[in-house]
Amino acid sequence: MLAATRDLLVENGLDATTVQAIAARSGVQTSAIYRRWSSRLDLIEEAVFPGPTDIQVEPSGDLRRDIRRFVRAYLAVFSSPAARVAIPRLLANYQSSGRSDLTPKWMAVSARPKFAEILRRSQPGIVDPCVDVEDVFDVLLGALLARALVPTVIERGKPIERLVDLTVRMLRATPES
Amino acid sequence: MLAATRDLLVENGLDATTVQAIAARSGVQTSAIYRRWSSRLDLIEEAVFPGPTDIQVEPSGDLRRDIRRFVRAYLAVFSSPAARVAIPRLLANYQSSGRSDLTPKWMAVSARPKFAEILRRSQPGIVDPCVDVEDVFDVLLGALLARALVPTVIERGKPIERLVDLTVRMLRATPES
Repeated sequence: MLAATRDLLVENGLDATTVQAIAARSGVQTSAIYRRWSSRLDLIEEAVFPGPTDIQVEPSGDLRRDIRRFVRAYLAVFSSPAARVAIPRLLANYQSSGRSDLTPKWMAVSARPKFAEILRRSQPGIVDPCVDVEDVFDVLLGALLARALVPTVIERGKPIERLVDLTVRMLRATPES
Repeated sequence: MLAATRDLLVENGLDATTVQAIAARSGVQTSAIYRRWSSRLDLIEEAVFPGPTDIQVEPSGDLRRDIRRFVRAYLAVFSSPAARVAIPRLLANYQSSGRSDLTPKWMAVSARPKFAEILRRSQPGIVDPCVDVEDVFDVLLGALLARALVPTVIERGKPIERLVDLTVRMLRATPES
């Protein structure tokens, strides 16, 4: 069902990726889909974003290397054809549905703790203890989304290493701090 | 017409903000709208995003202060009720329309050169000459979008100063560089 959802997103767009279409493509009943997902957008989220165990970025202790792997892994997720279709519409839905009933699973579940773990496992003295890891994560998340979705950023086509560099710059300890 | 467009976006959402509805609300003919904008989304872009002269962030030479004003000004733009409705759908449209026919005016026109000017006018020695200003802008743009649109970031509600700090960290010269 997840693969069928991704295929439909890429082929026909989000509006056409209905529960009926997913059922027809994957050969299951719509009732089976609704038993597992409470809404169409929940299913689309799960089809597009990896679960907490799907991305393996085991910290090596080398901060720059680990951030590079993290950036590469999540940029691949956000830039997949299905994700590029789905993310803007999921963001639109979060805005229009108000904030009380939304619990976006994506990123909240997997990437944020993984990023924190990478920093925790880096060599002592590299990461500035004054920097809030969650703040850096928020900036990096935005930068990854911009690289996947914003035309003026995509068109520049800069190497991933530029983003890795800037992330390390945000984190590193300096004599003054 | 721009004000009518913003009102309709907030009240009825993007799908209902048609050229017909904008014409009716603003009391003009649809033909007058089409003379000025080639498409509905062009008009929506112009209604939501300021032109190059609309945001005044004259550089004072104090880098942190100028970045703070820049961040505040553009976060206000991205977080406006009409922008929160429109931006995700504009991003969706960029993805679905392919890249050849898109020339998004927003940000490309006003914010990028303004950011570069702020850095150019800062005191010598503060900004690391090795850092690519455009790369930092791309990261900051993403961070601003995340603060306006991504629920897990919005809900953290962190002060703008956190983002100002991290932007200065990306830019500053350090003994090693």
